[in-house]
Order: sequence, then C-alpha cells, then structure tokens
Amino acid sequence: MQISVLHSVLKANDAVARGNRHRLGQYKLLALNITSAPGSGKTTLLEKTIPALAAENDQRSAVIVGDLQTSRDAERLGGVADQIVQINTEGGCHLSATMISEALDQLDLACVSYLFIENVGNMVCPACYDLGEHVRVAMLSVPEGDDKVAKYPTLFQPADVILLNKVDLIGVLSYQVNRVREDLSLVNTKSPLIELSTIAGVGMTSWYSWLVRQHRELYI
Amino acid sequence: MQISVLHSVLKANDAVARGNRHRLGQYKLLALNITSAPGSGKTTLLEKTIPALAAENDQRSAVIVGDLQTSRDAERLGGVADQIVQINTEGGCHLSATMISEALDQLDLACVSYLFIENVGNMVCPACYDLGEHVRVAMLSVPEGDDKVAKYPTLFQPADVILLNKVDLIGVLSYQVNRVREDLSLVNTKSPLIELSTIAGVGMTSWYSWLVRQHRELYI
Repeated sequence: MQISVLHSVLKANDAVARGNRHRLGQYKLLALNITSAPGSGKTTLLEKTIPALAAENDQRSAVIVGDLQTSRDAERLGGVADQIVQINTEGGCHLSATMISEALDQLDLACVSYLFIENVGNMVCPACYDLGEHVRVAMLSVPEGDDKVAKYPTLFQPADVILLNKVDLIGVLSYQVNRVREDLSLVNTKSPLIELSTIAGVGMTSWYSWLVRQHRELYI
Repeated sequence: MQISVLHSVLKANDAVARGNRHRLGQYKLLALNITSAPGSGKTTLLEKTIPALAAENDQRSAVIVGDLQTSRDAERLGGVADQIVQINTEGGCHLSATMISEALDQLDLACVSYLFIENVGNMVCPACYDLGEHVRVAMLSVPEGDDKVAKYPTLFQPADVILLNKVDLIGVLSYQVNRVREDLSLVNTKSPLIELSTIAGVGMTSWYSWLVRQHRELYI
C-alpha cells in the first residue's frame, strides 16, 4: 500500500519534473538542485557564487530556496540574487517538482542564466525527487565527519558534482579526505569532488569553472 | 490520498510505540530517542556516555542504531555498549516503532537500565515517529549554524532535552548561542538546553546528571 502510493507519487513527480526541465531549456537556463545536510553551507555557497558569476561573466541568477519554516535563507540571499522565491514546506522533508513548477511561475526566466534550487537540508528524502534540474549538486562538510558518503549513498550516487565544504576545519578536526574518496569510489566514479571553503575562499575558482562549463556544454 | 495514508501509518506506528513503551517499562528501562542532523555527534555522545554510566552508577546500556547503510556506528559502539542492534533502513529516512519492536526481540532487556536509540541522521522525518521512548533528545551542533532551531522547529518542539554539541568550536566559528535560546523560547520553553563538547568533555556532567534524574523520576 505505502510502496505503491510512493511509486505513483514519484511517477507523477517525474512527469512534472520533465515539464520543468523543458521549460527551463526554452530559456537556456542551467538549473541546479543543491542537496546537503542542514548547515553544510548551501546558503553561504550561493552568497559567494552568485556575485562571482555576475562579476566574471555578467550572468544573472535566480534562486528557489526550500525550508520547513522561516524565510531566513531568502533574506540572506536577497542582497545577491536577482530573483528569489522562498518555499516553506510546512514540515515537508524535501522539495517536489510541483513546488518548483509553481515557483517558476513567479520568476522572469528570460532574465537569468542560472537557477539555483536550494533544497531542504536533509541527506535522505531530497535524493528521490527529480525537480527538473539539469545537474544535481551534493554537498557535505568537514564537521559532519568523514563517514557520510558511505552512510548516505543515495544522495551521492546521482550527484553530478560533490562539494566538500569547510575544508579550513580539516586541521582542527581529525578528518580523513581519503575516506571520502574511497567511499565515493564505490558509489560514484563519474563526478568530480571539489574541496571548498566558502568562508575562507578555498576552491571557489574550481567550482565557478565547473559551473560555467556545465552551462556551456548544455547549450552550445 | 497521501495524507490519509500518512495518517493511518502514524496511527499504526503509535500503537506499536505504546506496546514498546509498556514492554520497556516492565524492565524499568529508560529509553531515549536521539535525533539530529547527520554528523552532529550522536555516536560520539554514546561512546562517552555509556562508559560513564557504567563507571559511576554501574548501570548497563543497550543501543539500537539506525542508518540507511553500513554498520559503522555499531562497530564504533561495539566496544562500549553491553548490547547493540544495528538497523539498516535501506533508504528509509527514519526509524519506526515496528523496527524498534523487532530490535527489542534481539536484546536481553533484563540486563540493562538504559536503551539509547540513535535515530537516522535527519532533522525532519524522525520527528513524526514515536518509537516508544520515554524521552526525546534533540541534538544540534555549532558548525551547523545558529539558525537550526527556527528552521527545524518540529524536531525541537517535542524534545525533552536539547543538546548543543561542539561548543569548543564557538570561538572558531561566528556562532551566537543567544540566537538558539531566543528561537527555543518560541517553540520549547519546558526543556533544558545543555551545552556540550563530547570531544573536549565540556558539559558532560550536566548531561549525565540529567539522564540519571530521568531514570530515577520515571521509576521511583
């Protein structure tokens, strides 16, 4: 009973997701679905990334941000994003393609090149739901411990890029990046791991280059 | 459709949870359901707590630990817990009362005073499921940022104690404990906030005292 309901929910979600992707393609947007545990640094990543894309390539960004409650992330990003929509899931543990479809209605898609979708902070449920994105970003951070890829493989297996954030804390904590690489070699060998510190500015150039390349490869 | 299914799932779960609680009460166990984001420090908390309870009060502990995959937490706790059961949810985002009931069948409940249930690392879904515990523990940690109580109120509202871990990193990161206290004052004024560092040994005596008091008040 539960399984068949979940199956039909996912099937319906995927149909809406395909519609979203088609719609985004018409405007030549690159849409990214960013997933991580709570507090890994998704919002800070966007606070840094969006102005950098604007400064280097004059490319504009919209953001859709999902949280159970509050508009704190939207308030933080209000100063940098050209357009922003906050979704409150009211207890829901992930964004869905229908939520994104409704949010797209509120955006002027002709004016932006990137759409960043900041999913609910949760390493489990967002993994199952296609939102219509072009690329999936899975972020983890050093204070969470170096066992997270092995423990949450469903998040990392479908990711197109894995961002390891807060690498400035590797020296403070006993974190073994090699353990992450070993665990990734079992679940995802196709996607790069980029080591970042959004606060200290480490690795951000690699991330921006990866982003710009994704956009170029999708539409040229 | 989805809502009515969820309602009936929760109702069935709650009935099993009541059975678990009754069974645990017959053996005078204190059962704790420990919830947090991935990597907040649940396993390290237990690695420190279980030997301390044994040393100070000669009280034995069993652990049920939930993860999507791997038995890494059980391996870490194997050296300290008297009895341990690892549940792999195979993608499931929370433990359920039925999983706990089956795990209880594998434990000798007459030999232990505490049952620690380490839930799947997830700040959303575990909040909805009563496992039959006597007390609910909600943990958060400094690197996750000081906005998590406001953003995940459903985890903190039903908690009997809130543990703020990794306080040794407050000086390294720009963390405002007052923001946590202000947000808690809106969702949960009944339960204490204990500031901890499981690694540095800060606040652990307060936590042990709280634990022992819960056991005493439940059965004496």
